Amino acid sequence: MDAKLNYVLQLADTCLIHAQRLGEWCGHAPVLEEDLALSNMALDLLGQARALLTHAGQLEGAGRDEDQLAFLREERDYRNLVLVELPNAAASPSDGSGGRDFALTTLRNAALSVWLELLYERLQASADAELAGIAAKSLKEVRYHRQHSSDWVVRLGDGTGESKARMQAALNLLWPYLNELFAAEGVDGVGPAWRELEPDWRARWATLMQEAGLNLPRDSAMQPQGHLGIHSEHLGHLLATMQYLQRAYPGGAW
Amino acid sequence: MDAKLNYVLQLADTCLIHAQRLGEWCGHAPVLEEDLALSNMALDLLGQARALLTHAGQLEGAGRDEDQLAFLREERDYRNLVLVELPNAAASPSDGSGGRDFALTTLRNAALSVWLELLYERLQASADAELAGIAAKSLKEVRYHRQHSSDWVVRLGDGTGESKARMQAALNLLWPYLNELFAAEGVDGVGPAWRELEPDWRARWATLMQEAGLNLPRDSAMQPQGHLGIHSEHLGHLLATMQYLQRAYPGGAW
Repeated sequence: MDAKLNYVLQLADTCLIHAQRLGEWCGHAPVLEEDLALSNMALDLLGQARALLTHAGQLEGAGRDEDQLAFLREERDYRNLVLVELPNAAASPSDGSGGRDFALTTLRNAALSVWLELLYERLQASADAELAGIAAKSLKEVRYHRQHSSDWVVRLGDGTGESKARMQAALNLLWPYLNELFAAEGVDGVGPAWRELEPDWRARWATLMQEAGLNLPRDSAMQPQGHLGIHSEHLGHLLATMQYLQRAYPGGAW
Repeated sequence: MDAKLNYVLQLADTCLIHAQRLGEWCGHAPVLEEDLALSNMALDLLGQARALLTHAGQLEGAGRDEDQLAFLREERDYRNLVLVELPNAAASPSDGSGGRDFALTTLRNAALSVWLELLYERLQASADAELAGIAAKSLKEVRYHRQHSSDWVVRLGDGTGESKARMQAALNLLWPYLNELFAAEGVDGVGPAWRELEPDWRARWATLMQEAGLNLPRDSAMQPQGHLGIHSEHLGHLLATMQYLQRAYPGGAW
């Protein structure tokens, strides 16, 4: 695959699958305001994914639009981080939550929105004017996501013994997957290698963890490779649900 | 829909969806022998579903075969009991089981196999020779399922405090759904109304519960209507996964 197309898809698919997971909270969040916030953030990310996928379709030049790229590719064609395809709860809780862990969701959202903010800041300067434009528009959205999710991380991390323990457990679980935030290659003139984001991300994350009273786990050698198309068992199930309508009614439109 | 076709589909779809849920245990059962047993029972039920769906396709006379009926219908076209589409764990346990509750699975399998045994016994006398033949062959299989699952119900119900509590919780949860076992209409010359199975089923179930030391819950007024095509939220997700291959590769064959 063309390196530039690949680079755009890694970001587009990460936004798309992250949006799908956040959207699963619709109607199930612990409070109504948060239900709306999670759904709105999902819609922001879906909007970013749409713009990026449309651009990817143009770069590909095979006549595929955003819908065909979102709904008709196969698992191995997706270039999203494994981090975003993980279910909203890793170990299913016994609290009647239906397999949704707010701590894990919030922590993942915080980690990703810090990362997206750093990436979009840099992509504003891309020689690809379309990508630069998408980045500038998206930056405002992910700044709000970062602020909102970080507030929750601090509130829960620095909250009760129970909320702190849940946040720490979520952090311990996700930590090895965060390595993939810094894994993808850059493309000259288009966008930076993701490893260039790592020092800033780590600095901001350390500050947030300190505010939240959470302990950074020991670094892991795990190197998830979703950005290369190698996924966990969870993506196939997510896609089966996400793609159902277009698979059952090919070409169907609203 | 033709009453005879409808009657056959109610049984066929119940076997099919029950097979799909049992098959989800493959590779995850608590002991290896049980992993094989659950998978083998799933395959037996899938075989029954195949024969019944093939017959349904002939009754329908629209040229659809077992694969098209299994993989290309929509949610509302399925006539299975709501009981079998419920996930393998209702409240997701926190024990790392990945959302599989062996107590619930075993209890459901016992309740269904007692019911299937009673139904197949009667269907052997169907004036529909094809249906009678399928019933005779399937009867041997479900007798083994009933024996195997009943042994587990007694072993766990009459086991430790923990295993007894889990079985009782599963029984309490499933009990209202079992009402649907007696809900479908009969078709003259083809097969009995399901309510005709109720006295025998209740007698056998009461004996089993006594052996297992479990308490029959109070009867519920709930009347699930999966046999009329009205399903829980769970069937759509199950179908999205089950139908994925045929939806993604229409007409694909091994």
